[in-house]
Formats: sequence, structure tokens, C-alpha cells
Amino acid sequence: MQGELGQKSHRAVSDAALDRLLPPETQLPSELHAAMRYACLSPGKRLRPAFVLGSCEAVGCDVSRAHDAAAAVEMVHCFSLIHDDLPALDDDDLRRGIPTVHKAFGEAVAILAGDALFALAFETVARYEPATLARDLVLELTRATGSEGLVAGEALDILVEGRPVDLDTVRWIHERKTGALIAASCAMGGLIGNASPPTVDALRSFGMAIGLAFQVQDDILNETSTPEQLGKAAGSDRARGKATYPGLFGLERARDFATELHQRALAILDEIGHCASLRGLARESVVRSA
Amino acid sequence: MQGELGQKSHRAVSDAALDRLLPPETQLPSELHAAMRYACLSPGKRLRPAFVLGSCEAVGCDVSRAHDAAAAVEMVHCFSLIHDDLPALDDDDLRRGIPTVHKAFGEAVAILAGDALFALAFETVARYEPATLARDLVLELTRATGSEGLVAGEALDILVEGRPVDLDTVRWIHERKTGALIAASCAMGGLIGNASPPTVDALRSFGMAIGLAFQVQDDILNETSTPEQLGKAAGSDRARGKATYPGLFGLERARDFATELHQRALAILDEIGHCASLRGLARESVVRSA
Repeated sequence: MQGELGQKSHRAVSDAALDRLLPPETQLPSELHAAMRYACLSPGKRLRPAFVLGSCEAVGCDVSRAHDAAAAVEMVHCFSLIHDDLPALDDDDLRRGIPTVHKAFGEAVAILAGDALFALAFETVARYEPATLARDLVLELTRATGSEGLVAGEALDILVEGRPVDLDTVRWIHERKTGALIAASCAMGGLIGNASPPTVDALRSFGMAIGLAFQVQDDILNETSTPEQLGKAAGSDRARGKATYPGLFGLERARDFATELHQRALAILDEIGHCASLRGLARESVVRSA
Repeated sequence: MQGELGQKSHRAVSDAALDRLLPPETQLPSELHAAMRYACLSPGKRLRPAFVLGSCEAVGCDVSRAHDAAAAVEMVHCFSLIHDDLPALDDDDLRRGIPTVHKAFGEAVAILAGDALFALAFETVARYEPATLARDLVLELTRATGSEGLVAGEALDILVEGRPVDLDTVRWIHERKTGALIAASCAMGGLIGNASPPTVDALRSFGMAIGLAFQVQDDILNETSTPEQLGKAAGSDRARGKATYPGLFGLERARDFATELHQRALAILDEIGHCASLRGLARESVVRSA
């Protein structure tokens, strides 16, 4: 780690930006804003914001320029968690060690809080100057999230539950469900830092490799951890017949695959400048127990 | 009606743009894309796209420039209908005379299809040139939809169900739930036509007045029509204790209020050029039986 971005600080920086950008609970409808804040400011790794900040630092830009975009990707992440946790989808009661949004606020408010976070994320990046950067950030985020990105991954993940799947399908789901937003987070940091198109592409590829590695590790932890360690349900993937690498390969080969992706991601960084923060974040994404 | 935009053509124009912009059903995940197309291309008035096209024409711009934005506002409208119809919200089985998206595709796909339409709408307007216009369109749409717009209106509408409400609350809900997106549609047509800021503001005010009038008429029809006439449930507002103008005022005063809003909207148009289409649409919004 180096520069402004220490191991501890990226969470504080992201949370300060989220707190500033999210409407106050005193504003109508209070329950909606309370749910949005509950989702975004609950304990969590703030990994995606850290990738925005780390990528901005890597291309030599003042990291404070990236604070709002960091908050925006966390809003998108929380929108997707809220909807994914709903009874009609994964039906999870626990997230980040506390009740999921629909458990705390009811399903109607949860659905709408997700929608509102999604809109606020786009508004946040659309406010960047100059307008060409704002537009690039919006497009980076829409491509990563829509029916060819995050939402596509979530949909196929649900649709293939309990069905036999091949490696290509698992990869297709994971690239979209997890890889796409982490890839976009890295690209956005580069865009804000005015990096060249090849550098932005390299950051996106790095993010995709680490995003996949993160998801493989997530699936491994789902099989091997307790709910207390994870702050969410454990063993649930197998119970639901989810498409996962450990399910397809076994734990050992899944671990090897995560390591291989980690190495591939680090090799991409060799092309880019000041990557100490990104290397640290890559390690945090793969070598972790929660 | 005048120019390219005839009474019949705005639906054909919007549907052609929607068909072009929505991913094909053959693309994975097929069910997701099928649900998005089902929601957007089912029978419907396409009123919001018509307001985009009509406003673009009113400021003397080639209406074909507005086709994509017209499709985008319909995507946002359909996203909001899909989520609003869910069992956790209004729990409606019928919409536009056919089963609601969650009845036809299941709740999980419905939630995700709504999310994907929302993302595609932002992507669509972010592609406009120049980038300053793209940014203005994104911001117009985010402000109209987020936790201070459409989603706020839906949330408070649900949260006050069955509770006594005053006139200010009903107006607060309707301005956001219905007015905001119609106002944004009109403003977007003006922005695409490179109208001056005062003209864009006038178009937005016209849209807000007509949007409110539309919602008052919607509430009147909910009390006085059959499900066959409406293509959706009738009498449901009263059964659920929804906050409505007829509920607060009675039918007659509600009708007077719709007429007053209609007149106010038409007066705003006196400031703007070629408004035959907008005048026709305003009439269609208020004087209607379905």
C-alpha cells in the first residue's frame, strides 16, 4: 500500500462519500432513505470502491477525484445484494452479519430501495466533469450492470439452479455476476485518472480476473465456513444446487483456479504504474476467510 | 396533429425503436430478454414516448433524433410497472389486458427484467451526442426516477396505504409517481431539440401538470370502469385504501381538478412554438376511458 490509500482508509473514504451522497433519513420517504443507508453503510469490505480508488491511484491521479465514483459502485453493489437476497431470488435472511434489507424493512421497501440506489449511482457518475468523462462512466456502469452484465449473471444463476451445468456456463455467470462490476470499478478509476484507452482496458481485464478469483473464493468459503465467519448463510450454494466452481471441480481444483486467476491479474498490473494498492486489494480478494 | 407525428404513428415509432434497442430473445439469458420485450412491447398507450417526440417537434427539431430517448422513457415506465405490480407491492395480476410480468415469467425474472430495463434506459440516453446532451438526459432521467422521483412516489404510495392522508400528501405522491417521468419526457424532447433552458423548463412544467391530470383521471377510471375497459384491475384503489383524489374529494371535484390541470398545461404551451401534437396528447391523457 502507498499514497493516500492505506489498507484501512479506503473504507472510511467510501463511507464518507456514501454518507454525503445518500439522502438523509429525515427526507421523505424516511423508510426508503433509511433502507438505502442501512444497505450501503452496514459493515462490509467496500472492495469495489477500493478498486476504483486503487485504479485511480495506479494511473497517478489525485484519489479524491474518485471518491464519488467509489460510492456509486458501492450503491450498485448494494442494489444487487438487496434484490438478490429477496425471497423470490436467493431468499437470504442475513447479510454482512445483520438482517437483509427485506427482513429489516419489508419486501416492498427493499425492492424500491434497490431501485433508488441504482438511480442514485447513475446520477452520481453523471455529475462528473467534463461531460465526456461523465458519459464514459455512465456507459461503463450500464454495460457492467444490465442484461448483458450483473443482472444477466444473476438471472442465469437463478435459472440454472438445480440443473447440471458445464464449466462455460459457470464462468459465464461469474464473469457477469461478480466480474463485470469489479472490472468496471477498475476501468472507472482509470477513466477518472484520464488514463489512455489501453491502460483502461488493462485495468478492466485485471478487474475481471480478480473478480472471478473473488467469486471462486466466495464459493469455496460458502462450502467451508460457518455463518458466523461469513456474516451470511453458509453451505447454501450446495443446498440450492447453485452453479459453482467447487461444485463442478471440487475444492482443491477450485483453489488452484483462484490462485491461477490471481497470478494472471497480477501479471496485467506489470504494464501499469503505481499498483501497490491494487496488488494489496487483489490479495485481499483471494486470500481471505470471510 | 402535424409534422411527422400523427395520432397513430407515435406508437409505431416508439415500438420500432424499442424492438431495435432491446436485446433479442435468442440472447442469453433468454427468459430475461423475453420478459423485457413482453413488458415493453405489450399493448399500451406509449404516452411517455409520445411526449418526448411531441416536445422535440414542438421546438422544431427532426423527431427522428428523439426516437431512442422515446424508447428509453418507455423502458423506465415498464421497469416501474413491473416492480409496482409485484406481490410485495400492488400485487396485480393483469396489466394492459395481459398477465403481469411476474405472472407470466415468475417473480425472480420480473424483478431482474425491471432492473435490466432501468439500466438499458440509462445506456440508451448516455449514447446521445454530444456528451453534454447525453449527460443532461441521464440527469433528467435519474432525477425523475430515484428516491426523490418515481421511486419515492411508489414508496410513499405503499407506505400510506390504509392510512388517512391529506391533499398535500396525495399531490406529493402523484407528482413523483406519475408527474415526474412525464415531465422528464417533455424536458428530454426539448433538450434533444437544443431548446433554450426556459423552454425546457416550460416543457417540464407542462409535463408535470399533464402528468398530474393523467393520474387524477387514472384514479377516476379505477373507480368507475370495469377491468375489461381498463385492461387491469378496477376498484382496487379503494379496496386497498390508496391515496387518491377521488378518495379525498369525491368524483366530481376530482374531475374538476383534472380539467383545471389540463387548462393550466395548455396555457404553458402558449409560450412554445409548434405544439399541435402536445395539445393532442394532453387531451388524450385527460379525456380518455382506458
